[in-house]
Amino acid sequence: MNDLDVGIVGASGYTGSELIRILAEHPRANIRAVTSEAHAGKKLQGLFPHLNGLIDLELIRSGDMDVENDVDIVFLALPHTVSMGFVKEIWNEDVDVIDLSGDFRLSSVEDYEKWYSMEHSCPELNDKAVYGLPELFRETIANARLVSNPGCYPTSAIIGLAPFLKEKLIDPSKIIVDSKSGVTGAGVKVRTSTHFPNINEDFRAYGIGTHRHTPEIEDVLSIYSGSVVSIQFTPHLLPLDRGILSTIYAKAQEGTTEDEIQEALHSHYSPEEFIRIREEPPSLKQVRGSNYCDVHAHLDSRTGNMIIVTVIDNLVKGASGQAVQNMNIMKGFDEGTGLRTPPLMP
Amino acid sequence: MNDLDVGIVGASGYTGSELIRILAEHPRANIRAVTSEAHAGKKLQGLFPHLNGLIDLELIRSGDMDVENDVDIVFLALPHTVSMGFVKEIWNEDVDVIDLSGDFRLSSVEDYEKWYSMEHSCPELNDKAVYGLPELFRETIANARLVSNPGCYPTSAIIGLAPFLKEKLIDPSKIIVDSKSGVTGAGVKVRTSTHFPNINEDFRAYGIGTHRHTPEIEDVLSIYSGSVVSIQFTPHLLPLDRGILSTIYAKAQEGTTEDEIQEALHSHYSPEEFIRIREEPPSLKQVRGSNYCDVHAHLDSRTGNMIIVTVIDNLVKGASGQAVQNMNIMKGFDEGTGLRTPPLMP
Amino acid sequence: MNDLDVGIVGASGYTGSELIRILAEHPRANIRAVTSEAHAGKKLQGLFPHLNGLIDLELIRSGDMDVENDVDIVFLALPHTVSMGFVKEIWNEDVDVIDLSGDFRLSSVEDYEKWYSMEHSCPELNDKAVYGLPELFRETIANARLVSNPGCYPTSAIIGLAPFLKEKLIDPSKIIVDSKSGVTGAGVKVRTSTHFPNINEDFRAYGIGTHRHTPEIEDVLSIYSGSVVSIQFTPHLLPLDRGILSTIYAKAQEGTTEDEIQEALHSHYSPEEFIRIREEPPSLKQVRGSNYCDVHAHLDSRTGNMIIVTVIDNLVKGASGQAVQNMNIMKGFDEGTGLRTPPLMP
Amino acid sequence: MNDLDVGIVGASGYTGSELIRILAEHPRANIRAVTSEAHAGKKLQGLFPHLNGLIDLELIRSGDMDVENDVDIVFLALPHTVSMGFVKEIWNEDVDVIDLSGDFRLSSVEDYEKWYSMEHSCPELNDKAVYGLPELFRETIANARLVSNPGCYPTSAIIGLAPFLKEKLIDPSKIIVDSKSGVTGAGVKVRTSTHFPNINEDFRAYGIGTHRHTPEIEDVLSIYSGSVVSIQFTPHLLPLDRGILSTIYAKAQEGTTEDEIQEALHSHYSPEEFIRIREEPPSLKQVRGSNYCDVHAHLDSRTGNMIIVTVIDNLVKGASGQAVQNMNIMKGFDEGTGLRTPPLMP
Repeated sequence: MNDLDVGIVGASGYTGSELIRILAEHPRANIRAVTSEAHAGKKLQGLFPHLNGLIDLELIRSGDMDVENDVDIVFLALPHTVSMGFVKEIWNEDVDVIDLSGDFRLSSVEDYEKWYSMEHSCPELNDKAVYGLPELFRETIANARLVSNPGCYPTSAIIGLAPFLKEKLIDPSKIIVDSKSGVTGAGVKVRTSTHFPNINEDFRAYGIGTHRHTPEIEDVLSIYSGSVVSIQFTPHLLPLDRGILSTIYAKAQEGTTEDEIQEALHSHYSPEEFIRIREEPPSLKQVRGSNYCDVHAHLDSRTGNMIIVTVIDNLVKGASGQAVQNMNIMKGFDEGTGLRTPPLMP
Repeated sequence: MNDLDVGIVGASGYTGSELIRILAEHPRANIRAVTSEAHAGKKLQGLFPHLNGLIDLELIRSGDMDVENDVDIVFLALPHTVSMGFVKEIWNEDVDVIDLSGDFRLSSVEDYEKWYSMEHSCPELNDKAVYGLPELFRETIANARLVSNPGCYPTSAIIGLAPFLKEKLIDPSKIIVDSKSGVTGAGVKVRTSTHFPNINEDFRAYGIGTHRHTPEIEDVLSIYSGSVVSIQFTPHLLPLDRGILSTIYAKAQEGTTEDEIQEALHSHYSPEEFIRIREEPPSLKQVRGSNYCDVHAHLDSRTGNMIIVTVIDNLVKGASGQAVQNMNIMKGFDEGTGLRTPPLMP
Repeated sequence: MNDLDVGIVGASGYTGSELIRILAEHPRANIRAVTSEAHAGKKLQGLFPHLNGLIDLELIRSGDMDVENDVDIVFLALPHTVSMGFVKEIWNEDVDVIDLSGDFRLSSVEDYEKWYSMEHSCPELNDKAVYGLPELFRETIANARLVSNPGCYPTSAIIGLAPFLKEKLIDPSKIIVDSKSGVTGAGVKVRTSTHFPNINEDFRAYGIGTHRHTPEIEDVLSIYSGSVVSIQFTPHLLPLDRGILSTIYAKAQEGTTEDEIQEALHSHYSPEEFIRIREEPPSLKQVRGSNYCDVHAHLDSRTGNMIIVTVIDNLVKGASGQAVQNMNIMKGFDEGTGLRTPPLMP
Repeated sequence: MNDLDVGIVGASGYTGSELIRILAEHPRANIRAVTSEAHAGKKLQGLFPHLNGLIDLELIRSGDMDVENDVDIVFLALPHTVSMGFVKEIWNEDVDVIDLSGDFRLSSVEDYEKWYSMEHSCPELNDKAVYGLPELFRETIANARLVSNPGCYPTSAIIGLAPFLKEKLIDPSKIIVDSKSGVTGAGVKVRTSTHFPNINEDFRAYGIGTHRHTPEIEDVLSIYSGSVVSIQFTPHLLPLDRGILSTIYAKAQEGTTEDEIQEALHSHYSPEEFIRIREEPPSLKQVRGSNYCDVHAHLDSRTGNMIIVTVIDNLVKGASGQAVQNMNIMKGFDEGTGLRTPPLMP
């Protein structure tokens, strides 16, 4: 019996289709409305031939969705700035919202306006938004009406760093996050940079020092750890579809031992269903298609540096899977419902 | 409630791990034993780190599996020749067997010995084996004790050709099957030909005129259609993990119309959950990770040729998914149980 | 001393940049003008950072090229229809032309208009154009003013079939050409079908029965062999950058032997520098970046079919390398000048 | 006229075949002997079908090469430890040696024995070896008899860091080198870790804190800059064939400006033919198949960190191309001879 009616706004992008893939198997959720301004009127399975036989839904315009009567919760898989406009519009309806855009991720509206180079159209709701990283903020998510779903890179960086910053085992001012992402992170939209021959057999860094996920990582970790955290963040583009691997470097505090590191990791994450502590460095494919974040941490006694490696599927734990995990928490379902599909390996 | 105890013999290969991936989500099956001669004593999740948290099983030697008491059905994910030896050994136990090797796929033991260049060690059981292509032989599968699971290439070829041969719309003596497979079809075993730089950015044909799946395709289609079918089969190796696409050419019988072709296709396959008829040529990723076979057929009125394109995931519909489909039929479960995971796209 | 001044019209596409890559090493040619309507005014090495340090040229509009005074030969790397307009414009200048588009490849203007669905704007020059496949038409190329450079798929198909059709060893009416191409064949232009996640780990057929290279293959082979040749041609898109592999099926004439096949192959191609006869089926990477076409042919005595496999780099022997080979012939240079760079393997 | 006779010892591996690819086009060098213990007696072009028509050489055992009479210079493309044995053996012959292994790269034999976990069999020759990075040590290379060719990762790291350490613009004690390499870096030898499905669509870190290139980078940079340099080095494996991209992080010295950084970069590298300074972060394919190292450097004024990105083709500038560059220097040829083949893009 599906007892929760769900709307997906912006269903034609990758996070939208991934929500559909996951929710199609969720025993409690019922997809009631899928929207796309560009494709309204078309069958969803026409747009996504891989869903033939599994789904039979027609795309509508977001304005045609009857938020009040048809849905209990909406997922916003929209570009930033469009997303906050939509939140504003439906705020007075009796509906929960999970926003997958960046519009409500920063605690400071000023930071948003600086890093996103635009005015925030909805500052009055920024404080209502709860940052949706369940392993850090489960309790507040449970009571939220508006969850701001984390960015893909920040998910991989924050999960990797949180235990060690919280336990004061590393210097918060000298952290390097070197991240490598698959191409789906760049979205469904066609552009020169994602033309096949421009990615295949190629690899590059981009957005050095300017990527918008930088303040998100710093902000969330500072709040969580109570220290001012500074991050040097460099994203790179991998010639593959799915996954983010972050290699994280931090200076261990004087006297920190390998045992303390492993203890911090286990005390934070052993109870977590979707975080797997790994003795060997994990690889992307070991989490592909799943909601897992695998974490490996190690102290290099020669240099005094900690090296942390995390892997996620950017479309699942880095976006739509985490969004469903948040939905489960908000609705009081078992947190892993619909999220236990094994990774697709090989 | 899981009411069926399952054994997987040869769990360390790709079809073995794929059976585990699928059965881990099957609501009626319970994996009771997993065997590997090379890795006996190890944890399965040690061998397959992607299954951490989902499975907790220890690999044993196949000889240590208590077939009589522990399992109701065994899947044999073994190399050919090894497989028939094991079938012989357990034939007197009260257990059903689904054999994923090629050992019982040909109706004639002589053909087996010719194409596989070795003696068949178990000819007396060859007639007991039922060819496990559900869409063609569902009824006999339901009553079988020994199901011979089809080869990956044959699945893609036979599904594409069966309706048109059965309805006598094409010349059975002039058929070309040009197939392209992902690398997992070559197995988990390391060899020079599958060293990454020997596959990546590369593409080649192999086994021209000599591949063992040739007689399997001819044999099954001849039996099913009642005509002697001759196949020119050429496999190729694609630089990707999963999937087989077969492009099939046949001479349409004089006077055949496009309508007759579509009618044959729909009358055979519209009722089938796992065959999707496609108006546009399908692509591999549209079935990746799923049990679907997508089929497109077209008559070229200029040349009088029919062109048929089929796609499957070689590890799912081409192996382990089809094996589970056969299990469902043998055990009277709903045929699609555990097999409705959407394709992983992108 | 470079004694030949060259212009490249349409230098910003893949065949254009490949011409530059090849001519940069050609001891007799001097690139004097490179044109691009979209990028006029920019440095070529700005558009192609990989050419930094090797080339220093500014892109100009094609109308700004002084054909009469500056160049001895022009390569047209333009879209079809644009190309014939340009040929018409410069026809009265004293300059040789190698056209890489499809505009002058068919002997019949009617066929062009049917398969390309448009009027031919320059029918009076169609007879002046010589089909630029050196191994078949070397003598006429040497005396041509306008060479129509072959299509990539046709190069791979024609080289594979020519000896056997010429020697009447195969039935010209029952030929299947199943071709698989890398993505650069689709051009530099960004489109949905070549967005990285739509190609990577994917494979598909396209243009079944309708691809414009079909009449080109039929036309050239009919003229060369003196028989009416009918081709069923199916192109496919591979998840890699460069290369075309064609698997070709033909019915051997009654009584044809393997020896006759090999003899035909050797008598035609042993003297050819850029055709390599291979005993084993060749793979794409073995010719990557080079002007080679590797050919393998085999008679399947069981079925009476011939199977021919050819591989080329679609941008070199399938386009720009062959164009330079034609230039060498037209100008009386040693035919292989500038074309002996070894394949890049791995 | 080729006036230099060359021997390649260990010609069946990737650096060996790459030497052949490059030297086949070198106007002054003549490959006189190619050795392989495993393939002695075979034709080189049988082992490497892509070289058919370009090369005709028979592989011999290294002991059968007449060093004294046949060759003027030998390249050792051997595994470490094997290499130093061979150097010892031929040291008294009148021949120059370029060793591509790691055996003579460290200035301290003790460091070698610690990081390579084995005894050095030839410590008396360690001081004779000159580190073959031309842009740093051109003069000593010119007079060397034994050149130790740099490792692939060290080439990318050292070129990126040398100017800034030399000019004292960065803190030598807090350097992070996060490197990503294509699979050819792991060699031609088949192993589980390079089985296609274990690399494709995957990405991982390895050798964290323990990779043998760590002391090589530290050693060379310490000697060159006169400061004790400490490196945290993490290699990763990319799902592609060729290329290393290193993302390098260093703390800028207090008060360092962007102008000083660019000035250091230009004063060191503007005269260098094979180093290209790039304003935008370079990508791997922009140097594929070529001897270029592209370098981008940037000061993040927000954090005070310098971020440097370098790219090379690991088989060319990271191995065989650099070896030929060293040969050119040793023999007084123009340094770029045979090394000006443009990158293969796309």
